Amino acid sequence: MRLWEKNIRSVEPYVPGEQPNFPDMIKLNTNENPYPPAPKVKQLLQEFSYDILRRYPDPAASELVCALAKYYKVKPSQIFVGVGSDDVLAMAFLTFFHSKRPIFFPDLTYSFYEVWAQLFEIPYQKKKLDSQFQIVMQDYFSPNGGIVLANPNAPTSIAKEIDFIEEIIKKNQESVVIVDEAYVDFGAVSSIPLLERYDNLLVVQTFSKSRSMAGMRIGFAIGSERLIEALNQVKYSFNSYTMNPFSIKIGTEVLKEDTYFKECIQKVIATRERVKERVKELGFLCPDSKTNFLFLKHTKWQAKELFEALRKQHIFVRYFEKERIENYLRVTIGTEQEMDVFLDFLQKYNKVI
Amino acid sequence: MRLWEKNIRSVEPYVPGEQPNFPDMIKLNTNENPYPPAPKVKQLLQEFSYDILRRYPDPAASELVCALAKYYKVKPSQIFVGVGSDDVLAMAFLTFFHSKRPIFFPDLTYSFYEVWAQLFEIPYQKKKLDSQFQIVMQDYFSPNGGIVLANPNAPTSIAKEIDFIEEIIKKNQESVVIVDEAYVDFGAVSSIPLLERYDNLLVVQTFSKSRSMAGMRIGFAIGSERLIEALNQVKYSFNSYTMNPFSIKIGTEVLKEDTYFKECIQKVIATRERVKERVKELGFLCPDSKTNFLFLKHTKWQAKELFEALRKQHIFVRYFEKERIENYLRVTIGTEQEMDVFLDFLQKYNKVI
Repeated sequence: MRLWEKNIRSVEPYVPGEQPNFPDMIKLNTNENPYPPAPKVKQLLQEFSYDILRRYPDPAASELVCALAKYYKVKPSQIFVGVGSDDVLAMAFLTFFHSKRPIFFPDLTYSFYEVWAQLFEIPYQKKKLDSQFQIVMQDYFSPNGGIVLANPNAPTSIAKEIDFIEEIIKKNQESVVIVDEAYVDFGAVSSIPLLERYDNLLVVQTFSKSRSMAGMRIGFAIGSERLIEALNQVKYSFNSYTMNPFSIKIGTEVLKEDTYFKECIQKVIATRERVKERVKELGFLCPDSKTNFLFLKHTKWQAKELFEALRKQHIFVRYFEKERIENYLRVTIGTEQEMDVFLDFLQKYNKVI
Repeated sequence: MRLWEKNIRSVEPYVPGEQPNFPDMIKLNTNENPYPPAPKVKQLLQEFSYDILRRYPDPAASELVCALAKYYKVKPSQIFVGVGSDDVLAMAFLTFFHSKRPIFFPDLTYSFYEVWAQLFEIPYQKKKLDSQFQIVMQDYFSPNGGIVLANPNAPTSIAKEIDFIEEIIKKNQESVVIVDEAYVDFGAVSSIPLLERYDNLLVVQTFSKSRSMAGMRIGFAIGSERLIEALNQVKYSFNSYTMNPFSIKIGTEVLKEDTYFKECIQKVIATRERVKERVKELGFLCPDSKTNFLFLKHTKWQAKELFEALRKQHIFVRYFEKERIENYLRVTIGTEQEMDVFLDFLQKYNKVI
């Protein structure tokens, strides 16, 4: 092996989630929204002047930043945007977690936190969720280099109340605390109001779930001006022009389509609650979800077997080969019709197993 | 100052180039192409199904990767794509430059190399170009952690022949050698054929200049399967989904519009050669450019004064407040009409100064 091969940064080869593509499939494995983006998007595409593509886009994505500031009632200087919330979170890890102390996050949470920590060589400690998959607050009270909490958490679907989050932030005034709210719009309470009191809090959200635009790659962070300034400096030192004019324009315009947005969310929530009742009748245990997915464990069935059986019928859900949750499935909430097919399958499975 | 502020990664605040927006402006400051993207792009936008945006895009951008592999006659496993060549280069720095030895690049070159080295805490040495702004080959023969060469170089506009590049690669079999060919299509010779013999060579190109798509954010690297595999692993550990479906589709389709592509390049080259002759008559010194810009120094005039005078007339060119080149201007080749306005200005400036 030559020296250049030895010098390659070693990372756990992360394999992105399966993206099957069958015409008849029911895809409940990546927490995408079953409803299309606001119809306005269709019109925007028709109206686009393709000639502008020869020019670099606005590096500051000001139009989108201002629209988000208006929507969330903060200053534009408190908003950072990126290519999906993964881009925003990766930049935040790179910018803020630069001490010798370990950062803390739960053992069961978004798996990318560990990947970024490894990639950027950030020391980290995973804090064990309790047996009910609840965050143990006191675990986050010792000295650390930063804290990352997904709220609601994934894949557990559980949300914590704002007082709980505030208590952790209050006790960690020497660290940047990131609250990843990818799923917050589906029924949890956002920590955005806490920004008035804590300049070390960074709230991260995305257009991928509640706004039906996973494809468009838009994520954003809201924080104090000091945090956003630091994030922008690192971003401009990495890649000045990340958001193309489609992302900027479409992102800006869909924020105005609030009625459609809220209707889609209500539909997903209504379906989730209906499915939750039905799966409980079929013998599943299921935490109270504040997301667009359910985290399911059956009292008798093996998750992996059920996962494979669903797969054979082109019903794709998410199975994690991971300690403590190896008998759980994460099931995205699809349309009413898609969930009926899923429930029918379970009913039949119940009879044959 | 609290601890979290002290722990913020410190970077030289990089300020992206000016993006003025006046209806009457002549924008020759960021090396954008004066001609629009292939007309096919317009049609593609009309045909886009907006519904696909609710889904995550293909993380491997396979359609685009395969189209590039076909175009450049390499295997798909030798292609890496990213959000502009800045994204590709940043990933390459992060992936390959991970030793204690310094990486080498010229003192006068794309200024981002130094920014990335600082951001990722990579030791580096800048090797001085000679008085004619030529790379001194022997400077790159001592032990190093990697080599980065822009060919043609920017802002000098000078290209080196392939034998020269090969000699440097041959002497550096223990390092990854990156050849940044952002401007190669405007008359230089690509190092792509060297890939057959050197598995430590990474060639980086972009759709931003010759393909008139700075806005679309598409860059790519071609290298050995081992290099591309390593790049992909780091990329998947950073952000799995960077290319949205517009970038993937439009990038794929414009590669088929080769006649239009070559016509635009020929127009830019013809304009460049004409302008070069004219500015020489007006007393400018100008290296032989193989790019879509000219690097100009006047025998009598001060560059900064000329820059300001042009600016007042809404003619934007690039001035670098930097040692050794503080009396040069970098002028992008615009349309024939735009360059006539620029030349007329110089003619008048000649009379008043």
